[in-house]
Amino acid sequence: MDSKRTNRRQLLKAGGAALAGLAAGSRSASGQTFGSTRPDGPPTDVMLYGERSRFVRTMRTRLGNKVNMTMHGSADGYDALTPLAEQEGIITPAPLHFVSSHGNPPPDIDPSSHRLMIHGMVDRPLVFTLAELKRLPSVSRIMFIECLANRPTPGAERTLTQLHGMISGSEWTGVPVSILLKEAGVKAGASWILGESAEATRAGRSTPLAKAMDDAFVAYGQNGEPVRPHNGFPLRLVVPGFEGKYQVKWLRGIKVVDRPYITYWEQGTFTRAGRSQGAYFMEQGPKSVITFPSGGQRLTSHGFQTVVGFAWSGSGAIRRVEVSTDGGKTWNDAQIQEPALRIALTRFQYPWTWTGSEAVLQSRCTDEHGQIQPTAADHARFWAPHTPPHGNMIQPWRIASDGQVFNAL
Amino acid sequence: MDSKRTNRRQLLKAGGAALAGLAAGSRSASGQTFGSTRPDGPPTDVMLYGERSRFVRTMRTRLGNKVNMTMHGSADGYDALTPLAEQEGIITPAPLHFVSSHGNPPPDIDPSSHRLMIHGMVDRPLVFTLAELKRLPSVSRIMFIECLANRPTPGAERTLTQLHGMISGSEWTGVPVSILLKEAGVKAGASWILGESAEATRAGRSTPLAKAMDDAFVAYGQNGEPVRPHNGFPLRLVVPGFEGKYQVKWLRGIKVVDRPYITYWEQGTFTRAGRSQGAYFMEQGPKSVITFPSGGQRLTSHGFQTVVGFAWSGSGAIRRVEVSTDGGKTWNDAQIQEPALRIALTRFQYPWTWTGSEAVLQSRCTDEHGQIQPTAADHARFWAPHTPPHGNMIQPWRIASDGQVFNAL
Repeated sequence: MDSKRTNRRQLLKAGGAALAGLAAGSRSASGQTFGSTRPDGPPTDVMLYGERSRFVRTMRTRLGNKVNMTMHGSADGYDALTPLAEQEGIITPAPLHFVSSHGNPPPDIDPSSHRLMIHGMVDRPLVFTLAELKRLPSVSRIMFIECLANRPTPGAERTLTQLHGMISGSEWTGVPVSILLKEAGVKAGASWILGESAEATRAGRSTPLAKAMDDAFVAYGQNGEPVRPHNGFPLRLVVPGFEGKYQVKWLRGIKVVDRPYITYWEQGTFTRAGRSQGAYFMEQGPKSVITFPSGGQRLTSHGFQTVVGFAWSGSGAIRRVEVSTDGGKTWNDAQIQEPALRIALTRFQYPWTWTGSEAVLQSRCTDEHGQIQPTAADHARFWAPHTPPHGNMIQPWRIASDGQVFNAL
Repeated sequence: MDSKRTNRRQLLKAGGAALAGLAAGSRSASGQTFGSTRPDGPPTDVMLYGERSRFVRTMRTRLGNKVNMTMHGSADGYDALTPLAEQEGIITPAPLHFVSSHGNPPPDIDPSSHRLMIHGMVDRPLVFTLAELKRLPSVSRIMFIECLANRPTPGAERTLTQLHGMISGSEWTGVPVSILLKEAGVKAGASWILGESAEATRAGRSTPLAKAMDDAFVAYGQNGEPVRPHNGFPLRLVVPGFEGKYQVKWLRGIKVVDRPYITYWEQGTFTRAGRSQGAYFMEQGPKSVITFPSGGQRLTSHGFQTVVGFAWSGSGAIRRVEVSTDGGKTWNDAQIQEPALRIALTRFQYPWTWTGSEAVLQSRCTDEHGQIQPTAADHARFWAPHTPPHGNMIQPWRIASDGQVFNAL
């Protein structure tokens, strides 16, 4: 590899001297200047792994999420929110995918030494290298992952990102769990799998065996490249439509078992009524949210506006999205943008003219099974309104007469 | 913004002192160390814009492409190839999207001062800011863009990337050209549009008005974020299914005209038989290529292999992919992976057992209109085999008995 092709990380390793030169120069992947004069030919490094424009600075929002852990004491969680309002389309750029890790930094895993073990109630325990997994038949799914904590909560100043930034959309690629388990041979009496993580707390999550055999997969790819460290590099268990906690990052094992395991986080945070199977909440209900105009934004002119947002359902495809601009009195169909894929972020838009009067905007969606997103009041009849699980109630936004947008829950 | 949240580019601007500290420390977006001990809490910066694992170093391949330009003399092109064999899924990561720019570095455009002008044969010439464009109704399409030069050419040592690395898949998001032109009002007699670029050579490309009104759009989004500089930031004209040259980068104008314009590159490179309308080649034909095993790779073990590849068509969706492992004597259906979207990269796979004997593998696809990918011999009956346009002939790969894979064209 010639020196011009040295990547940024290698340059950083080279220490201060190289870096000082890098800052002064104009030909590195980091210090690139586009459109400069080029007396000796075009810059080479910027071609190898293209960066964003220097005018684009969209970042995730760090979420303060102090967590208490018996084994580690109190620590900041590694939580970060996707800036949904700035997302153009149904794919979230991997560097902006939301992160929720309870007190654990991403483990620094060398993929060449990482292994996936299939064990427990199987006829033949198996161990796979990453290279071996990549040679098996694969699936790709464009789908959302959402944290069970993602939900509208009261507070007029709360923004779209603060309330709904724990959902992201990706194309995930990997090996179906069914292929791995058929190869290992599942023993009679098995009914669950435990996805085991390589993170510091050795987190594990239980998923029903039937779901695992239906459509779960072990992902090594995200948006065309290897899964990023914060999202599980090198392997993540993907359980389509289920809450984020089932999508086990840094996957090192799948243990076939005969009951859901009560692991560290399952003891309190993730079960409500104790340790019975019924206490597990799984599939995300139909949900939608308007991303423009939304909390924290401001309309700067009267007249025509394209109201836009996302809808999704853990059960399947979105079939209908309705928008109300009068506080819920009347509803009209929004246009659903293709592709409206199963268990994927789906874009909708709705033309609206803002007269300058105060208005309350909200959206509600219906999925392919006829499930309708509930109002907050309907939701509260069955679930605690402001604590997990199930945060799919309708999100109302209030447009003040000066154009400022507020959370109206 | 607190100092920990300063992004890398700002740090670079701060000069050598800050950079030296950055290299020595472990808390920056660039110098992150995952899984380190953390005496004073987790690092903050890595949460803002996540990087790849330090073990992942996939890069584009710079393509030496000396071009002669009357106005600039001879210069290296800004060309780079997508590492297709390493792409997991139908989305190409934006930093790895192929680039073909004939001698021009990406212009350094400030989006706040960029404008798109709609002019020519229109009733009301219009000028849009980026913010104005983003408030209009939008479309998103997951689709491929392919350079017309992408094709099999002879040379046993040629790799997949060298032969086929000028195709990439993205989700593109933007405003339909039809909305802009309806607003401007197209005059009678107009029949083409000229997409005008802000690049140094003021490149322009002509597209038939009917196609522009059907499904072309002005993209500001690529894979969820703003289009990257090498691919047209802040605006790119997207003409679904047409050759790459129609997808005008750094779009600054759409001129409605009554004939195709013969701009700089159209004079020789991009037309064959002169300057008539018939000399324009547009829609990409049905094409497929096996990415594993492919030229430059090596099979390391006998036995079960999952043959994988991509298929695509500029005319619509891929309906069938067949694979031959005996040099074209027999063909069997491969499995097409969902989603098989119109004018998008589509993944296929085919189970194969390699006995260790020499074998020639190839794929051929059929699109929704029944168009079948031609053999090189069939292709040569109508087109020059090794020069643009139309490079959609079948790509054969020869597996030698030692597992090494060669281009067999």
